Amino acid sequence: MRNDTHLTTPTRFVEANGVRYAYRRFGPEEGTPLVFLSHFRAGLDHWDPLVTDGLAGGRPVILFNNAGVASSSGEPADTIDASADHVARFVRALGLQAVDVFVRALGLQAVDVLGFSIGGYVAQSVILRYPELVRRLVLVGTAPRNGELANDPRIPAVAANPVPTLEDFLFLFFTPSAASQAAGKAFWQRRHQRKDADPPSSPPAMKAQSAAIAEWREPRGERYSALRAISQPTLVVNGNNDIMVPAINSFTLCQHIPNAQLIIYPDSGHGALFQYPDLFVAHTTIFLDS
Amino acid sequence: MRNDTHLTTPTRFVEANGVRYAYRRFGPEEGTPLVFLSHFRAGLDHWDPLVTDGLAGGRPVILFNNAGVASSSGEPADTIDASADHVARFVRALGLQAVDVFVRALGLQAVDVLGFSIGGYVAQSVILRYPELVRRLVLVGTAPRNGELANDPRIPAVAANPVPTLEDFLFLFFTPSAASQAAGKAFWQRRHQRKDADPPSSPPAMKAQSAAIAEWREPRGERYSALRAISQPTLVVNGNNDIMVPAINSFTLCQHIPNAQLIIYPDSGHGALFQYPDLFVAHTTIFLDS
Repeated sequence: MRNDTHLTTPTRFVEANGVRYAYRRFGPEEGTPLVFLSHFRAGLDHWDPLVTDGLAGGRPVILFNNAGVASSSGEPADTIDASADHVARFVRALGLQAVDVFVRALGLQAVDVLGFSIGGYVAQSVILRYPELVRRLVLVGTAPRNGELANDPRIPAVAANPVPTLEDFLFLFFTPSAASQAAGKAFWQRRHQRKDADPPSSPPAMKAQSAAIAEWREPRGERYSALRAISQPTLVVNGNNDIMVPAINSFTLCQHIPNAQLIIYPDSGHGALFQYPDLFVAHTTIFLDS
Repeated sequence: MRNDTHLTTPTRFVEANGVRYAYRRFGPEEGTPLVFLSHFRAGLDHWDPLVTDGLAGGRPVILFNNAGVASSSGEPADTIDASADHVARFVRALGLQAVDVFVRALGLQAVDVLGFSIGGYVAQSVILRYPELVRRLVLVGTAPRNGELANDPRIPAVAANPVPTLEDFLFLFFTPSAASQAAGKAFWQRRHQRKDADPPSSPPAMKAQSAAIAEWREPRGERYSALRAISQPTLVVNGNNDIMVPAINSFTLCQHIPNAQLIIYPDSGHGALFQYPDLFVAHTTIFLDS
């Protein structure tokens, strides 16, 4: 895997509890793997090679499709917590807990988790339900349970467009500025370089994820109080003008997670990590290596 | 100056409009100088050598006492705008505009400005009143005009203590956590290493600065609208738990300054840059060099 990259590494599969989870792994063999949890309906091809290869320069990178999403088999989860249970099964199925017996003996955690958008909801649930599995957390363009909602009435229809277009993506993930739109087009080019594309997520997968998002928006106990239980170092990242998941949610995360650093990028939206891939890699590397 | 450091560089003076401004300069001769504007009542010794020497690794660093503050002569300004006028006179008196004729010919700006707390108010006024003087802006532990106020009733008396103590500083600039308090004590040690200390600011200087802070808290036009005129790249930094200048003000700055990046550090207060000096230098270096 050492010589593999975002574009060349094969799609692999691992089975657990009757689900065949699709994933890709690249970067060095050694080190704490960074598991990527993707956005609504996204599969293995929906990341930025500059981000994944950039971070794979210093650690193993694992891209992952949750159950029923894109090339993974199984019933798609219709709650965030059930999605998190699949992540835990996947991490254990890969045997990541056993990679380094010294790490295990010290009680240290198995993986770092980077969750983007709904993947960030899942990442929060993973760390709350399986704290022993996670060393460090990166939350991008995401929100806590019962966070502040987007209010642009165009979003639901565009996000559910049966075949997503470049225009949809430029609207949902980037700001209207010329610089952000140009960065979005450049990202779109990078994203489509791979030839053996992961299949798109099915309508049932999108329906289940939509139900999971709706459930995550409901309150559960005192607002934001669950975040106090996240003891791992956390990096929260967003664009300053995210029409999908308003940036105030990222400020809220850094106010309630005890050890959270917040970085917000200028003139950018939900896809800030794709607009500033080099800066995002630099900041995330400093965070993961510190 | 190339071999000078925070601890060894002499205090220098430059005169303009009848004021003898005290400053210290170290780091390389070439490059855009970074001018430091300090917190309430602070003089040349109130920075962290790890921060100033760290940033002086890549650019000239200039520490500055505004008129009437510590070792600078003159009447202390009782508005933020008047303080900003002094900064502009000082920068021009140093001839920084003329250091590089090519830079001047291109219409580029003369200095980068790092403003901390009230120094951040002054930095905003400098960039709004003298945009031609400033290339990049770093705002730390600060707030826009008419921002959100602190609400701990103990702060005014402690901040005005005639002889500031370590305990005052640990309360005002750090959080109650053991890690933050330990970082505060380590900073206090670093801060007091210099032997030829700058004199403390006089009661009239503190009174004038208090009046300037009070005036900055008043509205002027539509709330936060002035920030839209800051076109230079800006880095906004704060601790997540700043009892002096609440961190929501930093979020507000990044929402209204068109090209602002925000970084908030965990478990830290007003003195976040002194709690995480290495991280602050790394992040600020990436910002200033990008």
